Amino acid sequence: MPKLRVKGIAFDLYGTVVDVAAVAEACKDVASDSAAFTAQWRAKQLEYTFLRSLMGNYQDFWKVSEQALAFALRRFGGAASPEQQRHLMEAWLHPKPYPEVAAALPRLKDRYPLAVLSNGSPRMLRAGLEHSGLRAAFRWVISVDAVKVYKPSPKVYQLAPKHMKLGKHDILFVSSNSFDVIGAKAFGFQVCWINRTGAPLDPLGPKPNLMVTSFDELVTALG
Amino acid sequence: MPKLRVKGIAFDLYGTVVDVAAVAEACKDVASDSAAFTAQWRAKQLEYTFLRSLMGNYQDFWKVSEQALAFALRRFGGAASPEQQRHLMEAWLHPKPYPEVAAALPRLKDRYPLAVLSNGSPRMLRAGLEHSGLRAAFRWVISVDAVKVYKPSPKVYQLAPKHMKLGKHDILFVSSNSFDVIGAKAFGFQVCWINRTGAPLDPLGPKPNLMVTSFDELVTALG
Repeated sequence: MPKLRVKGIAFDLYGTVVDVAAVAEACKDVASDSAAFTAQWRAKQLEYTFLRSLMGNYQDFWKVSEQALAFALRRFGGAASPEQQRHLMEAWLHPKPYPEVAAALPRLKDRYPLAVLSNGSPRMLRAGLEHSGLRAAFRWVISVDAVKVYKPSPKVYQLAPKHMKLGKHDILFVSSNSFDVIGAKAFGFQVCWINRTGAPLDPLGPKPNLMVTSFDELVTALG
Repeated sequence: MPKLRVKGIAFDLYGTVVDVAAVAEACKDVASDSAAFTAQWRAKQLEYTFLRSLMGNYQDFWKVSEQALAFALRRFGGAASPEQQRHLMEAWLHPKPYPEVAAALPRLKDRYPLAVLSNGSPRMLRAGLEHSGLRAAFRWVISVDAVKVYKPSPKVYQLAPKHMKLGKHDILFVSSNSFDVIGAKAFGFQVCWINRTGAPLDPLGPKPNLMVTSFDELVTALG
Protein backbone atom coordinates (compact mmCIF):
# COMPACT_ATOMS: atom_id res chain seq x y z
CA MET A 1 0.00 0.00 0.00
CA PRO A 2 1.31 3.48 -0.81
CA LYS A 3 2.06 5.52 2.28
CA LEU A 4 -0.67 7.99 3.27
CA ARG A 5 0.29 11.38 4.64
CA VAL A 6 -2.72 12.38 6.68
CA LYS A 7 -3.26 15.52 8.77
CA GLY A 8 -6.98 15.10 9.38
CA ILE A 9 -9.82 12.70 8.61
CA ALA A 10 -13.32 13.46 7.36
CA PHE A 11 -16.00 10.77 7.50
CA ASP A 12 -19.20 10.16 5.67
CA LEU A 13 -21.84 9.27 8.27
CA TYR A 14 -24.73 7.03 7.12
CA GLY A 15 -23.58 3.57 6.14
CA THR A 16 -19.98 4.46 7.02
CA VAL A 17 -19.86 5.35 10.71
CA VAL A 18 -23.41 4.46 11.64
CA ASP A 19 -25.66 1.67 10.49
CA VAL A 20 -29.14 2.55 9.28
CA ALA A 21 -30.47 -0.93 10.02
CA ALA A 22 -33.01 0.74 12.31
CA VAL A 23 -34.63 2.09 9.18
CA ALA A 24 -34.98 -1.40 7.68
CA GLU A 25 -36.31 -2.62 11.00
CA ALA A 26 -38.97 0.08 11.14
CA CYS A 27 -40.02 -0.73 7.57
CA LYS A 28 -41.14 -4.21 8.65
CA ASP A 29 -44.30 -2.65 10.04
CA VAL A 30 -45.53 -1.22 6.75
CA ALA A 31 -44.47 -3.55 3.93
CA SER A 32 -44.72 -7.29 3.46
CA ASP A 33 -41.54 -7.31 1.35
CA SER A 34 -39.76 -4.94 3.69
CA ALA A 35 -36.29 -5.52 2.17
CA ALA A 36 -37.53 -4.40 -1.26
CA PHE A 37 -39.41 -1.52 0.32
CA THR A 38 -36.34 -0.33 2.23
CA ALA A 39 -34.17 -0.67 -0.88
CA GLN A 40 -36.66 1.40 -2.87
CA TRP A 41 -36.82 4.09 -0.20
CA ARG A 42 -33.04 4.38 0.03
CA ALA A 43 -32.50 4.28 -3.73
CA LYS A 44 -35.03 7.09 -4.21
CA GLN A 45 -33.56 9.06 -1.34
CA LEU A 46 -30.17 9.10 -3.07
CA GLU A 47 -31.65 9.62 -6.53
CA TYR A 48 -33.54 12.66 -5.26
CA THR A 49 -30.32 14.17 -3.87
CA PHE A 50 -28.74 13.78 -7.31
CA LEU A 51 -31.76 15.14 -9.18
CA ARG A 52 -32.33 18.11 -6.90
CA SER A 53 -28.64 18.99 -7.11
CA LEU A 54 -28.74 18.83 -10.91
CA MET A 55 -31.94 20.85 -11.14
CA GLY A 56 -30.57 23.41 -8.71
CA ASN A 57 -33.58 22.75 -6.51
CA TYR A 58 -32.19 21.85 -3.08
CA GLN A 59 -34.28 20.72 -0.18
CA ASP A 60 -32.70 19.32 2.95
CA PHE A 61 -32.11 15.61 3.54
CA TRP A 62 -35.02 15.28 5.94
CA LYS A 63 -37.48 16.57 3.33
CA VAL A 64 -35.86 14.52 0.58
CA SER A 65 -36.14 11.42 2.77
CA GLU A 66 -39.81 12.13 3.45
CA GLN A 67 -40.45 12.52 -0.27
CA ALA A 68 -38.63 9.28 -1.06
CA LEU A 69 -40.69 7.53 1.61
CA ALA A 70 -43.89 8.90 0.09
CA PHE A 71 -42.84 7.53 -3.30
CA ALA A 72 -41.94 4.10 -1.89
CA LEU A 73 -45.28 3.89 -0.09
CA ARG A 74 -47.17 4.76 -3.26
CA ARG A 75 -45.09 2.38 -5.35
CA PHE A 76 -45.64 -0.52 -2.97
CA GLY A 77 -49.23 0.38 -2.30
CA GLY A 78 -48.39 0.56 1.37
CA ALA A 79 -50.83 2.29 3.68
CA ALA A 80 -49.01 4.05 6.48
CA SER A 81 -50.72 6.37 8.91
CA PRO A 82 -49.09 9.75 9.53
CA GLU A 83 -47.95 8.31 12.85
CA GLN A 84 -46.30 5.31 11.15
CA GLN A 85 -44.60 7.60 8.68
CA ARG A 86 -43.26 9.68 11.54
CA HIS A 87 -41.98 6.50 13.17
CA LEU A 88 -40.22 5.48 9.93
CA MET A 89 -38.59 8.88 9.55
CA GLU A 90 -37.47 8.94 13.17
CA ALA A 91 -35.39 5.84 12.57
CA TRP A 92 -33.00 8.22 10.77
CA LEU A 93 -32.50 10.06 14.04
CA HIS A 94 -31.45 6.87 15.90
CA PRO A 95 -28.72 5.23 13.86
CA LYS A 96 -26.33 2.78 15.54
CA PRO A 97 -22.55 2.87 15.22
CA TYR A 98 -21.10 -0.19 13.50
CA PRO A 99 -19.81 -2.61 16.19
CA GLU A 100 -16.13 -1.68 15.98
CA VAL A 101 -16.59 2.08 15.63
CA ALA A 102 -16.93 3.15 19.27
CA ALA A 103 -13.54 1.63 20.15
CA ALA A 104 -11.74 2.65 16.97
CA LEU A 105 -12.76 6.31 16.80
CA PRO A 106 -10.93 7.42 19.99
CA ARG A 107 -7.72 5.84 18.67
CA LEU A 108 -8.04 7.89 15.50
CA LYS A 109 -9.02 10.98 17.48
CA ASP A 110 -5.83 10.74 19.54
CA ARG A 111 -3.81 11.23 16.37
CA TYR A 112 -5.89 13.32 13.99
CA PRO A 113 -8.58 15.96 14.09
CA LEU A 114 -11.81 14.29 12.92
CA ALA A 115 -14.80 15.62 11.02
CA VAL A 116 -18.14 14.36 9.74
CA LEU A 117 -19.12 15.51 6.25
CA SER A 118 -22.61 14.29 5.46
CA ASN A 119 -25.68 14.74 3.28
CA GLY A 120 -27.71 14.78 6.48
CA SER A 121 -29.44 17.97 7.58
CA PRO A 122 -27.93 19.71 10.62
CA ARG A 123 -30.80 18.49 12.81
CA MET A 124 -30.38 14.89 11.64
CA LEU A 125 -26.65 15.00 12.26
CA ARG A 126 -27.07 16.48 15.72
CA ALA A 127 -29.64 13.88 16.73
CA GLY A 128 -27.79 10.96 15.13
CA LEU A 129 -24.45 11.75 16.74
CA GLU A 130 -26.00 12.35 20.14
CA HIS A 131 -28.06 9.17 20.13
CA SER A 132 -25.11 7.12 18.94
CA GLY A 133 -22.83 8.59 21.60
CA LEU A 134 -20.23 9.64 19.03
CA ARG A 135 -20.52 13.42 19.11
CA ALA A 136 -17.38 13.95 21.21
CA ALA A 137 -15.15 12.19 18.68
CA PHE A 138 -15.63 14.86 16.04
CA ARG A 139 -14.25 18.37 16.11
CA TRP A 140 -16.41 19.37 13.14
CA VAL A 141 -19.86 18.22 12.06
CA ILE A 142 -20.41 19.52 8.56
CA SER A 143 -23.67 19.29 6.62
CA VAL A 144 -24.09 19.83 2.87
CA ASP A 145 -26.86 22.18 3.92
CA ALA A 146 -24.25 24.96 4.04
CA VAL A 147 -23.90 24.83 0.24
CA LYS A 148 -27.41 23.61 -0.71
CA VAL A 149 -26.20 20.87 -3.00
CA TYR A 150 -25.44 17.18 -2.38
CA LYS A 151 -22.52 14.82 -2.85
CA PRO A 152 -20.69 14.20 -5.12
CA SER A 153 -20.61 17.91 -6.02
CA PRO A 154 -17.11 19.29 -5.41
CA LYS A 155 -18.78 22.19 -3.59
CA VAL A 156 -19.61 19.75 -0.80
CA TYR A 157 -16.10 18.32 -0.47
CA GLN A 158 -14.67 21.84 -0.42
CA LEU A 159 -16.39 22.33 2.94
CA ALA A 160 -13.90 20.00 4.65
CA PRO A 161 -10.65 21.85 3.84
CA LYS A 162 -12.48 25.09 4.58
CA HIS A 163 -13.57 24.08 8.08
CA MET A 164 -10.58 21.90 8.95
CA LYS A 165 -8.13 24.53 7.66
CA LEU A 166 -6.12 21.85 5.89
CA GLY A 167 -5.15 21.37 2.27
CA LYS A 168 -7.41 18.89 0.50
CA HIS A 169 -4.46 16.58 -0.19
CA ASP A 170 -3.78 16.39 3.56
CA ILE A 171 -7.25 15.12 4.37
CA LEU A 172 -8.21 11.46 4.35
CA PHE A 173 -11.86 11.09 3.40
CA VAL A 174 -13.55 7.89 4.53
CA SER A 175 -16.77 6.55 3.05
CA SER A 176 -18.53 3.27 2.39
CA ASN A 177 -20.47 4.65 -0.57
CA SER A 178 -18.85 4.02 -3.92
CA PHE A 179 -20.09 7.25 -5.48
CA ASP A 180 -18.87 9.24 -2.49
CA VAL A 181 -15.45 7.56 -2.67
CA ILE A 182 -15.12 8.44 -6.34
CA GLY A 183 -16.40 11.99 -5.95
CA ALA A 184 -14.05 12.62 -3.04
CA LYS A 185 -11.06 11.18 -4.89
CA ALA A 186 -11.86 13.22 -8.00
CA PHE A 187 -12.02 16.30 -5.77
CA GLY A 188 -8.48 15.71 -4.52
CA PHE A 189 -8.73 14.05 -1.10
CA GLN A 190 -6.83 10.95 -0.14
CA VAL A 191 -9.62 8.42 0.13
CA CYS A 192 -10.34 5.26 2.09
CA TRP A 193 -13.22 3.07 0.98
CA ILE A 194 -14.80 1.08 3.80
CA ASN A 195 -16.21 -1.74 1.76
CA ARG A 196 -18.08 -3.87 4.27
CA THR A 197 -19.96 -5.92 1.68
CA GLY A 198 -17.36 -6.68 -0.99
CA ALA A 199 -19.13 -4.46 -3.50
CA PRO A 200 -17.52 -3.71 -6.88
CA LEU A 201 -16.35 -0.13 -7.41
CA ASP A 202 -18.29 1.93 -9.95
CA PRO A 203 -15.95 2.56 -12.90
CA LEU A 204 -16.43 6.31 -12.83
CA GLY A 205 -13.12 7.78 -11.86
CA PRO A 206 -9.91 7.39 -9.92
CA LYS A 207 -9.63 4.52 -7.42
CA PRO A 208 -9.40 5.15 -3.67
CA ASN A 209 -5.96 5.11 -2.04
CA LEU A 210 -7.07 2.45 0.38
CA MET A 211 -9.80 -0.17 0.70
CA VAL A 212 -10.64 -1.75 4.05
CA THR A 213 -13.54 -3.74 5.44
CA SER A 214 -13.77 -2.10 8.88
CA PHE A 215 -12.59 0.76 11.08
CA ASP A 216 -10.13 -1.62 12.73
CA GLU A 217 -8.40 -2.18 9.41
CA LEU A 218 -8.29 1.58 8.89
CA VAL A 219 -6.58 2.09 12.26
CA THR A 220 -4.04 -0.58 11.36
CA ALA A 221 -3.42 0.86 7.90
CA LEU A 222 -2.67 4.26 9.41
CA GLY A 223 0.02 2.55 11.43
CA MET B 1 -57.45 19.64 -19.04
CA PRO B 2 -56.02 23.15 -19.30
CA LYS B 3 -55.52 24.31 -22.89
CA LEU B 4 -51.98 23.92 -24.21
CA ARG B 5 -50.56 26.57 -26.51
CA VAL B 6 -47.87 24.71 -28.43
CA LYS B 7 -45.62 25.99 -31.21
CA GLY B 8 -43.20 23.06 -31.30
CA ILE B 9 -42.62 19.69 -29.64
CA ALA B 10 -39.41 18.23 -28.28
CA PHE B 11 -39.24 14.51 -27.43
CA ASP B 12 -37.09 12.43 -25.18
CA LEU B 13 -36.01 9.36 -27.20
CA TYR B 14 -35.25 6.20 -25.18
CA GLY B 15 -38.32 4.80 -23.48
CA THR B 16 -40.46 7.60 -24.89
CA VAL B 17 -40.34 7.34 -28.70
CA VAL B 18 -38.41 4.10 -28.98
CA ASP B 19 -38.49 0.94 -26.93
CA VAL B 20 -35.22 -0.43 -25.65
CA ALA B 21 -36.64 -3.94 -25.28
CA ALA B 22 -33.88 -5.07 -27.68
CA VAL B 23 -31.46 -4.40 -24.83
CA ALA B 24 -33.37 -6.66 -22.46
CA GLU B 25 -33.57 -9.28 -25.20
CA ALA B 26 -29.81 -9.22 -25.76
CA CYS B 27 -29.20 -9.55 -22.00
CA LYS B 28 -30.83 -13.00 -22.02
CA ASP B 29 -27.60 -14.38 -23.42
CA VAL B 30 -25.40 -13.34 -20.51
CA ALA B 31 -27.47 -13.52 -17.33
CA SER B 32 -29.75 -16.17 -15.87
CA ASP B 33 -31.89 -13.50 -14.18
CA SER B 34 -31.83 -11.27 -17.23
CA ALA B 35 -34.61 -8.97 -15.98
CA ALA B 36 -32.60 -8.11 -12.86
CA PHE B 37 -29.45 -7.78 -14.92
CA THR B 38 -31.11 -5.40 -17.38
CA ALA B 39 -32.62 -3.36 -14.54
CA GLN B 40 -29.19 -3.07 -12.90
CA TRP B 41 -27.57 -2.01 -16.17
CA ARG B 42 -30.17 0.66 -16.84
CA ALA B 43 -30.23 1.94 -13.27
CA LYS B 44 -26.45 2.32 -13.27
CA GLN B 45 -26.52 3.94 -16.70
CA LEU B 46 -28.81 6.68 -15.38
CA GLU B 47 -27.01 6.96 -12.06
CA TYR B 48 -23.73 7.49 -13.87
CA THR B 49 -25.24 10.33 -15.92
CA PHE B 50 -26.31 12.00 -12.68
CA LEU B 51 -22.99 11.43 -10.93
CA ARG B 52 -20.82 12.53 -13.85
CA SER B 53 -22.94 15.65 -14.24
CA LEU B 54 -22.59 16.47 -10.55
CA MET B 55 -18.85 15.81 -10.52
CA GLY B 56 -18.39 17.89 -13.68
CA ASN B 57 -16.83 14.83 -15.29
CA TYR B 58 -18.81 14.23 -18.51
CA GLN B 59 -18.30 11.28 -20.77
CA ASP B 60 -20.73 10.54 -23.58
CA PHE B 61 -23.71 8.20 -23.23
CA TRP B 62 -22.02 5.39 -25.16
CA LYS B 63 -19.09 5.33 -22.72
CA VAL B 64 -21.36 5.70 -19.72
CA SER B 65 -23.46 2.79 -20.99
CA GLU B 66 -20.35 0.65 -21.45
CA GLN B 67 -19.22 1.47 -17.90
CA ALA B 68 -22.67 0.65 -16.50
CA LEU B 69 -22.58 -2.66 -18.40
CA ALA B 70 -19.15 -3.46 -16.95
CA PHE B 71 -20.50 -2.82 -13.46
CA ALA B 72 -23.59 -4.96 -14.01
CA LEU B 73 -21.47 -7.83 -15.32
CA ARG B 74 -19.17 -7.65 -12.31
CA ARG B 75 -22.07 -7.38 -9.88
CA PHE B 76 -23.87 -10.37 -11.38
CA GLY B 77 -20.66 -12.30 -11.87
CA GLY B 78 -21.58 -12.59 -15.53
CA ALA B 79 -18.84 -13.60 -17.93
CA ALA B 80 -19.29 -11.92 -21.28
CA SER B 81 -16.72 -12.08 -24.05
CA PRO B 82 -15.74 -8.80 -25.70
CA GLU B 83 -17.87 -9.90 -28.65
CA GLN B 84 -20.91 -10.46 -26.40
CA GLN B 85 -20.39 -7.07 -24.77
CA ARG B 86 -20.29 -5.48 -28.20
CA HIS B 87 -23.52 -7.27 -29.07
CA LEU B 88 -25.14 -5.96 -25.89
CA MET B 89 -24.03 -2.41 -26.58
CA GLU B 90 -25.20 -2.53 -30.17
CA ALA B 91 -28.73 -3.17 -28.99
CA TRP B 92 -28.72 0.55 -28.13
CA LEU B 93 -28.23 1.33 -31.83
CA HIS B 94 -31.29 -0.70 -32.88
CA PRO B 95 -34.20 0.51 -30.77
CA LYS B 96 -37.77 -0.06 -31.99
CA PRO B 97 -40.46 2.61 -32.08
CA TYR B 98 -43.40 1.90 -29.79
CA PRO B 99 -46.22 0.38 -31.86
CA GLU B 100 -48.33 3.53 -32.31
CA VAL B 101 -45.45 5.94 -32.90
CA ALA B 102 -44.84 5.52 -36.64
CA ALA B 103 -48.45 6.45 -37.44
CA ALA B 104 -48.77 9.21 -34.83
CA LEU B 105 -45.57 11.14 -35.52
CA PRO B 106 -46.51 12.30 -39.05
CA ARG B 107 -49.80 13.67 -37.71
CA LEU B 108 -47.86 15.73 -35.19
CA LYS B 109 -45.28 16.72 -37.76
CA ASP B 110 -48.02 18.14 -40.01
CA ARG B 111 -48.87 20.65 -37.32
CA TYR B 112 -45.67 21.34 -35.36
CA PRO B 113 -41.93 21.36 -35.88
CA LEU B 114 -40.54 18.36 -33.99
CA ALA B 115 -37.24 17.78 -32.20
CA VAL B 116 -35.50 15.02 -30.31
CA LEU B 117 -33.65 16.08 -27.14
CA SER B 118 -31.80 13.10 -25.71
CA ASN B 119 -29.01 11.96 -23.41
CA GLY B 120 -27.82 9.77 -26.31
CA SER B 121 -24.52 10.57 -28.00
CA PRO B 122 -24.80 12.00 -31.53
CA ARG B 123 -23.73 8.66 -33.02
CA MET B 124 -26.30 6.72 -30.99
CA LEU B 125 -29.05 9.13 -31.99
CA ARG B 126 -28.13 8.98 -35.66
CA ALA B 127 -28.05 5.19 -35.71
CA GLY B 128 -31.18 4.80 -33.58
CA LEU B 129 -33.30 7.16 -35.68
CA GLU B 130 -32.11 5.65 -38.94
CA HIS B 131 -32.71 2.07 -37.87
CA SER B 132 -36.11 2.89 -36.51
CA GLY B 133 -37.10 4.76 -39.68
CA LEU B 134 -38.07 7.89 -37.75
CA ARG B 135 -35.34 10.31 -38.79
CA ALA B 136 -37.52 12.23 -41.28
CA ALA B 137 -40.07 13.14 -38.64
CA PHE B 138 -37.66 15.38 -36.74
CA ARG B 139 -36.33 18.74 -37.86
CA TRP B 140 -33.78 18.77 -35.05
CA VAL B 141 -31.90 15.96 -33.35
CA ILE B 142 -30.26 17.41 -30.27
CA SER B 143 -27.82 15.59 -28.01
CA VAL B 144 -26.76 16.66 -24.53
CA ASP B 145 -23.24 16.19 -25.85
CA ALA B 146 -23.34 19.83 -26.95
CA VAL B 147 -23.30 20.97 -23.32
CA LYS B 148 -21.43 18.03 -21.71
CA VAL B 149 -23.91 17.51 -18.94
CA TYR B 150 -27.00 15.28 -18.63
CA LYS B 151 -30.68 15.72 -17.87
CA PRO B 152 -32.19 17.08 -15.71
CA SER B 153 -29.69 19.96 -15.84
CA PRO B 154 -31.42 23.11 -17.13
CA LYS B 155 -28.45 23.53 -19.50
CA VAL B 156 -29.74 20.54 -21.44
CA TYR B 157 -33.31 21.79 -21.73
CA GLN B 158 -32.04 25.20 -22.84
CA LEU B 159 -30.78 23.52 -26.03
CA ALA B 160 -34.34 23.10 -27.31
CA PRO B 161 -35.41 26.76 -27.35
CA LYS B 162 -32.00 27.62 -28.73
CA HIS B 163 -32.23 25.26 -31.72
CA MET B 164 -35.96 25.51 -32.29
CA LYS B 165 -35.90 29.30 -31.99
CA LEU B 166 -38.98 29.25 -29.79
CA GLY B 167 -39.64 30.50 -26.29
CA LYS B 168 -39.46 27.73 -23.71
CA HIS B 169 -43.10 28.28 -22.75
CA ASP B 170 -44.11 27.63 -26.38
CA ILE B 171 -42.48 24.19 -26.46
CA LEU B 172 -44.21 21.01 -25.39
CA PHE B 173 -41.66 18.57 -24.00
CA VAL B 174 -42.68 14.90 -24.09
CA SER B 175 -41.03 12.21 -21.98
CA SER B 176 -41.85 8.93 -20.30
CA ASN B 177 -39.20 9.38 -17.61
CA SER B 178 -40.48 10.89 -14.41
CA PHE B 179 -37.24 12.73 -13.62
CA ASP B 180 -37.15 14.15 -17.14
CA VAL B 181 -40.75 15.30 -16.87
CA ILE B 182 -40.04 17.09 -13.62
CA GLY B 183 -36.76 18.62 -14.80
CA ALA B 184 -38.39 19.86 -18.00
CA LYS B 185 -41.36 21.34 -16.17
CA ALA B 186 -39.10 23.04 -13.62
CA PHE B 187 -37.14 24.50 -16.55
CA GLY B 188 -40.27 26.12 -17.96
CA PHE B 189 -41.55 23.90 -20.78
CA GLN B 190 -45.10 22.76 -21.09
CA VAL B 191 -44.76 19.05 -20.41
CA CYS B 192 -46.55 15.86 -21.39
CA TRP B 193 -45.77 12.69 -19.46
CA ILE B 194 -46.22 9.51 -21.47
CA ASN B 195 -46.86 7.13 -18.62
CA ARG B 196 -47.16 3.74 -20.30
CA THR B 197 -46.89 1.76 -17.09
CA GLY B 198 -49.03 3.66 -14.58
CA ALA B 199 -45.98 4.70 -12.58
CA PRO B 200 -46.32 7.18 -9.69
CA LEU B 201 -44.73 10.60 -10.23
CA ASP B 202 -41.68 11.38 -8.13
CA PRO B 203 -42.66 14.16 -5.70
CA LEU B 204 -39.82 16.46 -6.72
CA GLY B 205 -41.36 19.42 -8.40
CA PRO B 206 -44.20 20.78 -10.48
CA LYS B 207 -46.60 18.32 -12.13
CA PRO B 208 -46.73 17.92 -15.92
CA ASN B 209 -49.43 19.75 -17.84
CA LEU B 210 -50.67 16.53 -19.36
CA MET B 211 -50.42 12.81 -18.70
CA VAL B 212 -51.21 10.26 -21.42
CA THR B 213 -50.54 6.56 -21.92
CA SER B 214 -49.61 6.66 -25.63
CA PHE B 215 -48.80 8.88 -28.59
CA ASP B 216 -52.37 8.42 -29.82
CA GLU B 217 -53.68 10.04 -26.69
CA LEU B 218 -51.20 12.87 -27.17
CA VAL B 219 -52.47 13.49 -30.72
CA THR B 220 -56.04 13.55 -29.42
CA ALA B 221 -55.17 15.86 -26.53
CA LEU B 222 -53.61 18.36 -28.92
CA GLY B 223 -56.96 18.38 -30.74
